Amino acid sequence: MIKQISYDDIRVGDSAIMNKRISVKDVESFAEILNDKDSFHVDEEVARKSIFGKRVCHGMHIASYISEVTGKELPGFGTIYLNQTLNFKTPVYLNSNITIEVKVLEKLPRRKLRMLTVIKDEDENLVLDGEAIVKVSK
Amino acid sequence: MIKQISYDDIRVGDSAIMNKRISVKDVESFAEILNDKDSFHVDEEVARKSIFGKRVCHGMHIASYISEVTGKELPGFGTIYLNQTLNFKTPVYLNSNITIEVKVLEKLPRRKLRMLTVIKDEDENLVLDGEAIVKVSK
Repeated sequence: MIKQISYDDIRVGDSAIMNKRISVKDVESFAEILNDKDSFHVDEEVARKSIFGKRVCHGMHIASYISEVTGKELPGFGTIYLNQTLNFKTPVYLNSNITIEVKVLEKLPRRKLRMLTVIKDEDENLVLDGEAIVKVSK
Repeated sequence: MIKQISYDDIRVGDSAIMNKRISVKDVESFAEILNDKDSFHVDEEVARKSIFGKRVCHGMHIASYISEVTGKELPGFGTIYLNQTLNFKTPVYLNSNITIEVKVLEKLPRRKLRMLTVIKDEDENLVLDGEAIVKVSK
């Protein structure tokens, strides 16, 4: 069932949350799109020598799940992405769980929403925060 | 050959540019990571009825190439992504070419750089602009 909330039905403070497990396959697919062969994201040896000590997910990979939540949950189907700010705080390791939360901060003219976007890891560490502006489709 | 420019060797105004062709396969791999099955990014029928009229790439997919340029060209290997602002201006259609340009705007303390990040399509339309803050690895 496709979820699609109309602009008029959205209230400031409305929020949606999604849980995700980030698999090795996800990280490797993302690396393939970026043609990334030898960074601390994909190479165990390089990762061991980095400040992270082991392989971490690409920041933009993790940030991408924000668009999954806005596009599926709030406001849902047909959402158009206009702006995003991203502050990367803590790396996400492979095979770990994250929660992505979006919350309506302000309703703007022309069916736009300003939203808080926050990602945490399974230990409740802040992975990423920022704000998005999206356009609701109806 | 892995490129890695040290903080001391970087000057304000230094820039790097990369060209990319965004294949259907790239868009579908990205959609698979996001478990996206019925949006205007992946479904021809849905796309035809959308304001775009045909399938467009995910905004965050396109934005991700910024990290490819910073991680490979300027400042190169080992770059750590700290912040990014993204303003999505024009959609990118499948099988089109984009150029991603990054430029050093300011050298910040503790080996950080503030960079302009701009993506254009093959007709020189502005696809995305914004700024990044990255940490140079050495």
